Formats: sequence, structure tokens, C-alpha cells
Amino acid sequence: MKKYAIIVAGGTGKRMGESLPKQFLKLGGTPILIHTLQAFNIADPEIELIITLPKEEIQFWDELNVWHQNYITHKVVAGGETRFHSVKNALEHVDEGLVAIHDGVRPFVSPDIIYESFKLASEKQAVITAVKMKDSVRQLTEDGKSKNIDRSTLRMVQTPQTFTVDLLKSAYNTEFKNHFTDDASVVEAYGKDVSLIEGDYRNIKITTPEDLVIAEALLANK
Amino acid sequence: MKKYAIIVAGGTGKRMGESLPKQFLKLGGTPILIHTLQAFNIADPEIELIITLPKEEIQFWDELNVWHQNYITHKVVAGGETRFHSVKNALEHVDEGLVAIHDGVRPFVSPDIIYESFKLASEKQAVITAVKMKDSVRQLTEDGKSKNIDRSTLRMVQTPQTFTVDLLKSAYNTEFKNHFTDDASVVEAYGKDVSLIEGDYRNIKITTPEDLVIAEALLANK
Repeated sequence: MKKYAIIVAGGTGKRMGESLPKQFLKLGGTPILIHTLQAFNIADPEIELIITLPKEEIQFWDELNVWHQNYITHKVVAGGETRFHSVKNALEHVDEGLVAIHDGVRPFVSPDIIYESFKLASEKQAVITAVKMKDSVRQLTEDGKSKNIDRSTLRMVQTPQTFTVDLLKSAYNTEFKNHFTDDASVVEAYGKDVSLIEGDYRNIKITTPEDLVIAEALLANK
Repeated sequence: MKKYAIIVAGGTGKRMGESLPKQFLKLGGTPILIHTLQAFNIADPEIELIITLPKEEIQFWDELNVWHQNYITHKVVAGGETRFHSVKNALEHVDEGLVAIHDGVRPFVSPDIIYESFKLASEKQAVITAVKMKDSVRQLTEDGKSKNIDRSTLRMVQTPQTFTVDLLKSAYNTEFKNHFTDDASVVEAYGKDVSLIEGDYRNIKITTPEDLVIAEALLANK
């Protein structure tokens, strides 16, 4: 069965307080997005890789690849206004089999998780990666107060989120809605349940300056 | 107004895969619990510090203080079966004013947060520190499935959690219940609402081996 990974890198870097989009920030001297590409390539070189990037960043990405001698074969697709639109654009370059959607700024995804995610998706059609909450959680209520909620029932969602191509294409054949924060929410809106696999606390999403500090430590400790 | 901080260090270190309880693990060469004590002492040397420790660890803690030349004045109280029981024991050594409860394994709490927490508690009686969720969140449902929940309404709870002594003593004058995962939940069960202040993503709770790697990086970057 054909396997695809769509690596979504739409960030403009504003949250990092840096001018460089976060997917291009250096981690151990190499742009984060190249680490992420390598993670999938190492897990299974047969996976067809598609990266979505803001249109105006594509040329710079091409130059980065030359500079860092990154020869991993991949397709680049211009992203859209939101993550939803970027994935939708990328899905036009996918025909059949299985497709994993992954955040470009999660370079520490393990080969095991990638493997498990594709394996279970071939059985269950929709599989997402999630970890337990370590901290207590509160929910804000409409009266401006908040209440304790049972954290044992909660999971923090990571990527990859992996689907059969047929299902994901059908689910994305809709208009954008504000509650589409990940692919699972799109698939659920289409009426299909998702299965969970155990993620990894190291599989962090690098979105703030302190995340980059943490990422350097995780890389050094790998 | 008198100020106390109860620093709860009841961990046995099992989750770390180490034999040393996690509060004693070294961070930059110094036990985590000494870092935490220093954080409060630096924020305001007037705060009276109380540490709760498992009874069998108290002698080792005394030795660690000598070894690391830690001269910060503090009281040590034997912890109980759970966090709830430890705080309850420590509250017997508190008489009036304000009291902050803090996790012994959160050494990166900032002076600003400690200051704000006491300040708001003097007005609102019950104040907890919390941060926004960065990841999508799912809730497991009774039918073995899960559903997406709106992360914008969720907060991850940190410490300090700061209260007027009167309120916290009254709230703790009850039996332990399983859903008492933090002090806010005890105070809420007593019928009092809690106010939130903005926490800090650096204020991590060190509970797993990868947390210790992250903590070393945050310390080096401080």
C-alpha cells in the first residue's frame, strides 16, 4: 500500500519573536524542517514526502536544502490560509493508500510512532497520536469562573495523524470551520471516529523560544 | 500580612526510573528541592518556608543541606499518604495570613509569579497559576471513543496555588477524596471559587527522565 506524509509548515514565526519562520530555525545547526523530513525518511524511505510551505517561503526553502545538502526527495506544495487549507492543497497530490499528516515543527517523532501510525491506520482508517496529561486541568466556564476536570480522561493530541487517503479526501471535501484545529476534528465532523495510539513526550511542537531551548537539549540527549 | 510557602516534596522517584526521590535529583549539580527553596527565598526572604518530605527522607535531606551548604531557613514536616495529607500536616504549622502551596519539583517558578500570586490572594482569597494549552485536546468517552474539546477553554494548572490561611485551613478540614488532585480542587469542594493568574511554560514539573533533560536546558538558559 502506498504511503504518503504531508508535513505542514505554515508558520510565520511570529510567536517565536524571531523574523525567520519557526520551521527554518536551526536545531543543532540544521533547520527544524530538515530534521522532520529526516525522521520520516529514516522511519521508512518508501514514504512519499510532501511539504506545505507559505508560497513566499518556497524559494528560501530550496536554497536551504542546497546549503544543508539535503537530498531527501520531497514535493513542495504552497500552503493556504490555514492548516486546513494547506492540507487540502497537499491532498491534491496524493492518490491512494495511506497518508500521515505531521507538523513540520515536530522533529522528534520516533520511527516507532510513524510505523505504528501507518500500521493501525491500515486497519482502523483514522489514527492519531496522543499522550496523557501530566498537570491538573481546569475548564473556563461561561460565568467567568473555572472548574477542575478529570485529567485521566484527557489526552494531548500530537501528530502524526494518519488516515486512508479515501477517508481523508472525503472528509476534507468541505468548507473550513473554526473548530478544525487538527485533522482528527475534520474527520470527526465527517462522521468517522478516530483511534488513538500512544505518543511520546519528546515529540514536542516547537512554537515558543523556550521550546527551542528544550529541543536543543532533547537533540543533544538523543 | 504573614506569608508562608508549603513546598510539597512527597515523590518517591518511581516514575523517574531512578532510586533517588525526584526532588533530590541534581540539576546543575544542586538538588532540585534546593533550587525550589531558593526561588521562594529570592522572590521574598520574608516568606516562611515549610517543606513536606516522606518521613524516611528527612535525614537525607538534612545531610544534603549540609553537603550543599544550603543555609535558607525552613521547617521540615513529615508528609502523609497523599499530597492532600502532606499539605494538611504542614498547615498545622501555619497560623495566619497567606499561604502558597508549591510543588517541590517546580524549581523554575519566577519571582514575578510568586509576587503576583500572594498579591492577588490577599484580594481574592484563592489564586492558582495556569497556562493555556498549546496542543489540541481530546476527551475519552464512556463508549471507548474520544471527542475533540475546545482547547481555548482549557488551562493547565501549575503551582503556586495561594490562599488566605483561614480559607485553606477550613477547606482542608475534611476527609480525602480521590478527585483532590491539587489545592484548588480541595477549596472548590469547600464551595469557594478560585481565581487564575497567568503561569509560565518554563515553570515545569519535573516528573520524567526527559523532564530532567529539559530542566538542565532551562537552567543553562536562565
